[in-house]
Amino acid sequence: MNESLLRKNIREIKAYVPGKTISGLIKLASNENPFGPSPKALEAIKKETSNLHIYPDQSSNKLREALSNKFSLPAECFVCGNGSDDIMQVLAASYINQGDEVIISKNTFSVYELVSKIYDGNAVFVDLKEFAVDLGAISSAITSKTKIIFLTNPNNPTGTIFTAGEFDSFMKNIPENIIVVVDEAYAEFVESKDYPDVLKYIKQGRNVIALRTFSKFYGLAGIRIGYGIGPKELLAPLFKVKMPFNVNRLAQAAAVAALDDKKFLEKTFKNNAEGKKYFYSEFDKLEIDYKKTEANFIFVNLKRPAEEFAKSMVEKGVIIRSLQSFGLPQAIRVSIGLPAQNKKFVSLLK
Amino acid sequence: MNESLLRKNIREIKAYVPGKTISGLIKLASNENPFGPSPKALEAIKKETSNLHIYPDQSSNKLREALSNKFSLPAECFVCGNGSDDIMQVLAASYINQGDEVIISKNTFSVYELVSKIYDGNAVFVDLKEFAVDLGAISSAITSKTKIIFLTNPNNPTGTIFTAGEFDSFMKNIPENIIVVVDEAYAEFVESKDYPDVLKYIKQGRNVIALRTFSKFYGLAGIRIGYGIGPKELLAPLFKVKMPFNVNRLAQAAAVAALDDKKFLEKTFKNNAEGKKYFYSEFDKLEIDYKKTEANFIFVNLKRPAEEFAKSMVEKGVIIRSLQSFGLPQAIRVSIGLPAQNKKFVSLLK
Repeated sequence: MNESLLRKNIREIKAYVPGKTISGLIKLASNENPFGPSPKALEAIKKETSNLHIYPDQSSNKLREALSNKFSLPAECFVCGNGSDDIMQVLAASYINQGDEVIISKNTFSVYELVSKIYDGNAVFVDLKEFAVDLGAISSAITSKTKIIFLTNPNNPTGTIFTAGEFDSFMKNIPENIIVVVDEAYAEFVESKDYPDVLKYIKQGRNVIALRTFSKFYGLAGIRIGYGIGPKELLAPLFKVKMPFNVNRLAQAAAVAALDDKKFLEKTFKNNAEGKKYFYSEFDKLEIDYKKTEANFIFVNLKRPAEEFAKSMVEKGVIIRSLQSFGLPQAIRVSIGLPAQNKKFVSLLK
Repeated sequence: MNESLLRKNIREIKAYVPGKTISGLIKLASNENPFGPSPKALEAIKKETSNLHIYPDQSSNKLREALSNKFSLPAECFVCGNGSDDIMQVLAASYINQGDEVIISKNTFSVYELVSKIYDGNAVFVDLKEFAVDLGAISSAITSKTKIIFLTNPNNPTGTIFTAGEFDSFMKNIPENIIVVVDEAYAEFVESKDYPDVLKYIKQGRNVIALRTFSKFYGLAGIRIGYGIGPKELLAPLFKVKMPFNVNRLAQAAAVAALDDKKFLEKTFKNNAEGKKYFYSEFDKLEIDYKKTEANFIFVNLKRPAEEFAKSMVEKGVIIRSLQSFGLPQAIRVSIGLPAQNKKFVSLLK
């Protein structure tokens, strides 16, 4: 094949580097729910399989109704995707013109950059400040060409949050022609009382979109479902641009059921809060440099080559995430697992 | 929201019009398998649900291995998508530069046009000839700007095919810098001995991609899985541009199992061949104008308003597809169902 056939702006795109899955090993690499999938979701899937020959509802209406009830917002303020990265992609397709600038924090989830490049946007990277999103520096990076700002809260891979007060100050300086996307993939794990209420801005009709997922807290990474919350006018174009049947039937049914799986969700939250404390206390004893987290993973600044460390851990039976592909070659990200899994990791650390 | 925020080239995109699903009614509108999903696929799904909290394999490797065995081509010659429309989208993202021309037959599946527009391509429409793809006219529409040609074989919504001989002649005139995409969504239903062997060109390394799906023959429309077959160099960029976890775990497992579900596939083929003959004979008696089909649906040229006809059919309990959204307001498409469903439709026609 002649290389010149390729679309110009995708030539330099690198493939996504996923967390490894090796069966039999303890996987603390992809922030998956260590309890497995929501049992109510599995029941719903079982009931739905006999309809698998029928195309899914292209608007995921039942799920949007359920989300509408949960968040007390009209169903039109929700869009569902084949994972929240599908929504990022469709959002970019709807709004990024050639040459538009897209502001992204450095050292984060690579799909923000991927979708910006695919649609000819110019990704503008802003350094983290002490491994946390730097809203001040992001504000300063705004130009007349800025179209979208991607924020991650809690931040991936460092687990930090920006607070409600910080976000309110930030929003005061955002012009109307900029879309602020807040990726809240880990929102359900947050314990801080200072977590921002992004929905407040959506209710005001500001150009703000929150992204959520069923992959983490709800234990449904394998079936692919995420959603966006935003003013209906801002989301409307996404329904035209998305592939018609982007969310499969089982994902739609599973998500509706998972939202309602209180027992499972409480158990997940409690396990995470306890696992976090356990890691803090053990890391403190070992004088390891880490960041306090509001998510279901902990960022550890190893200060030595993370790839080698990750390899040696795999040999010992635990998969964690080297952050080399995030541009942090001396750091790792460890998902909070079940107590025995956390203990195993700590024992290997020693 | 300010309309000017929108990406320029998506402003005129219209939303996809799907076939209706109304529970309790006979649905002959979306070319779904009337026997339901492949039983082997359902078994595989059941086994896989306990892993639903784990991200899927981002390259669908097991499925690509299975396809490699089925078609005797290297696994690198296959790419899997969240339905074959996902592959069209990623293909467009990889290859369409602004202003590139994309040749598409008129009155067909709307996603070819959608993905062309999303990536700033200029869709060039070529008329059908007696409701069949006109390869001669498509050849004549090629210019120095042509980048992709979308062909549908069997054609949707008319069920016609172009033959091996016709395709061979066509391919002789295709320059190397043009990608020919042959959407073979209905290939498994074909009875004609003259159906083209597109794989021949892929083995030669020509810029040709065949698209297949598990939505029709395999009864898996609801779980979303399709695949592309092409030279590995041509497909390689798609793996970088696609969303990392585009194909869910259950779809991957279901598809591998469905490929091997001989009994189900034989039953599906036989029912379709028989249903087709039944429709032909009844339509002949009623002197209805229809096209002979190589797919699992029949195109009927009603010669009166199809929307009204479709509405009256729904009232009587059968959903068929008015082709108004295909630009054929006086024609319908009827999926071949189970014998009793086909009979019901014919009785209503009378």
